[in-house]
Amino acid sequence: MKAAIYTGNETFALQERSPPHMGPADVRIDVGYVGICGTDMHVYKGHMDKRVGFDRVIGHEMSGTVSEVGPEVQDIAVGDKVVVRPLVSCGKCPACLVGNEHICHKLNFIGLDSDGAFREQMVAPGALLHKVPESMDLLHAALVEPTAVACHAIKRSRLRAGEDVLILGAGPIGMLIAMVARHAGGNVTISETNTNRLELAGRLGFGTVDPTESDVGEFIHSKTSGKGAEVVFEVSGSQAAVRAMTTAAASRGRVVMIAIHAQRGDIDLFQFFWRELEMIGGRVYQPDDFDKAIALLASHEIPAASLITEVSELESIGATFRSLGSNPSSMKSIIRLG
Amino acid sequence: MKAAIYTGNETFALQERSPPHMGPADVRIDVGYVGICGTDMHVYKGHMDKRVGFDRVIGHEMSGTVSEVGPEVQDIAVGDKVVVRPLVSCGKCPACLVGNEHICHKLNFIGLDSDGAFREQMVAPGALLHKVPESMDLLHAALVEPTAVACHAIKRSRLRAGEDVLILGAGPIGMLIAMVARHAGGNVTISETNTNRLELAGRLGFGTVDPTESDVGEFIHSKTSGKGAEVVFEVSGSQAAVRAMTTAAASRGRVVMIAIHAQRGDIDLFQFFWRELEMIGGRVYQPDDFDKAIALLASHEIPAASLITEVSELESIGATFRSLGSNPSSMKSIIRLG
Repeated sequence: MKAAIYTGNETFALQERSPPHMGPADVRIDVGYVGICGTDMHVYKGHMDKRVGFDRVIGHEMSGTVSEVGPEVQDIAVGDKVVVRPLVSCGKCPACLVGNEHICHKLNFIGLDSDGAFREQMVAPGALLHKVPESMDLLHAALVEPTAVACHAIKRSRLRAGEDVLILGAGPIGMLIAMVARHAGGNVTISETNTNRLELAGRLGFGTVDPTESDVGEFIHSKTSGKGAEVVFEVSGSQAAVRAMTTAAASRGRVVMIAIHAQRGDIDLFQFFWRELEMIGGRVYQPDDFDKAIALLASHEIPAASLITEVSELESIGATFRSLGSNPSSMKSIIRLG
Repeated sequence: MKAAIYTGNETFALQERSPPHMGPADVRIDVGYVGICGTDMHVYKGHMDKRVGFDRVIGHEMSGTVSEVGPEVQDIAVGDKVVVRPLVSCGKCPACLVGNEHICHKLNFIGLDSDGAFREQMVAPGALLHKVPESMDLLHAALVEPTAVACHAIKRSRLRAGEDVLILGAGPIGMLIAMVARHAGGNVTISETNTNRLELAGRLGFGTVDPTESDVGEFIHSKTSGKGAEVVFEVSGSQAAVRAMTTAAASRGRVVMIAIHAQRGDIDLFQFFWRELEMIGGRVYQPDDFDKAIALLASHEIPAASLITEVSELESIGATFRSLGSNPSSMKSIIRLG
């Protein structure tokens, strides 16, 4: 089978590899589509070489069709359309012991810590599979994983219908959070510096603000009669957003930290005390977030497919990654393997 | 009646003043005891002159006996032992409109924004009074207000019995949080640099750690088999504690921000994402926190009286404040007015 191997230095090698080994609790999947995540771009740029090494099949936003089922696997059959929740947890660490396997201290993230989906076949434990409806396009099913990130973020936020929501950063995850938040009844405003993304947000019907032109806190308070946003999602990773998140939040507002801040943040702790703000970390997803994402996508309740800006073949994966780094209008780029 | 007036420049003037005016919804109280809060020390040091001015009766940790009841006040009678919840809210701001009157955007804090309790009589709206049992010592009742801060902090933390709790800072509020947390079933460790306070924490049966001698995060992880503390209370206001709070917290741990950080904090945002930590602001109290504090103190379920290090007269208020600033063994100093 063909596989794209990340070999370091912004390079993938297309290789012919033996099909992966099956265990009795595993399922073999013919990979259909694989989305390119911001994390994949970080790998490509060499930021995660220590973690992933130079002989790794990356890719974790996948969809596919089951081709072989191990004897210990239940409720999965050959021909099923599936997605893989790419988290293998240890079951023994303090996080796992209290039911938080998704933030396992020894998490094996498939596509980073072990081989992922940029290959024709992958094998995964049956317990990590979620079936998608037969009627669902596998292209759209490749959006389940990032949509599950959004569903998890909304769950962590405890969003209630009617609340004002501010999203700081409108990459694919920010945009999916906006869609899921609106579906949950939130009044969503998106703050973004990239004008292409800001225009897309506007076309999708969201309120928008450009933080290089307006003070985001003042904009939100003006829009909400001085109240502020009950829920703020920080999805940008920028220090400017860390400043905006406390000024834009309503009293007792919840700030959900989805972005990866490599640097320590300079944060207004006084506002957390004075207005009883909350900051809530949100990372990846739990099984119910995958189920929710599948339901939202299969029923077309959120316009996630509007985020797909490109579909290309595995053979051109190198060129696809290269162009993504310099294309401000790209949103979600997907590799087809079927 | 005698009143101590803060006149600026670390000075109180003892003056004879007319008794305060009563409205129909007000209650007149013969003040019994008034505790000195850290905030009162900030006023004394001149840090809050812009807010309190130079003709202010401060003091808000009070107890007393009702001497006159306005015609519109129900359920309060002359002779009742009471405490005043010193928060007058506007009822119209975004916080008040959703039931968070305690963090009203235009809060009038009695004893800072209007005259407080360092005087023989005070008048307060009947709606702000909480009766204490007839059997309760008014000296102990002066601890209701700071104990209500602790009850509010515990409520905000969502502490469950059996959880490990770390308290960063063992002033009176930190120590009361420790007591209420232990009463709620928490396994409490206190981190404190002042050796007098650390020794008192040990005598009261709490685990202790001196952050100048041990790494607090390592200490807590070692004590909890690598898990960390489910709940961390930041009550110190120090940047060292802001660093320790994220390292000591368990995955999905809740950090409750009770301290006033005048400076923006340098905070490990990555840990909030990676381990799904939460930070929860907690400020003052709500009516149920006062009720809880009265119940805990009246029944002697927490050893709050052990925090009282001094009781002195109103006439010596200047000397009392002066000595507090330089006495590392002082904890809760109380002024007697009865």
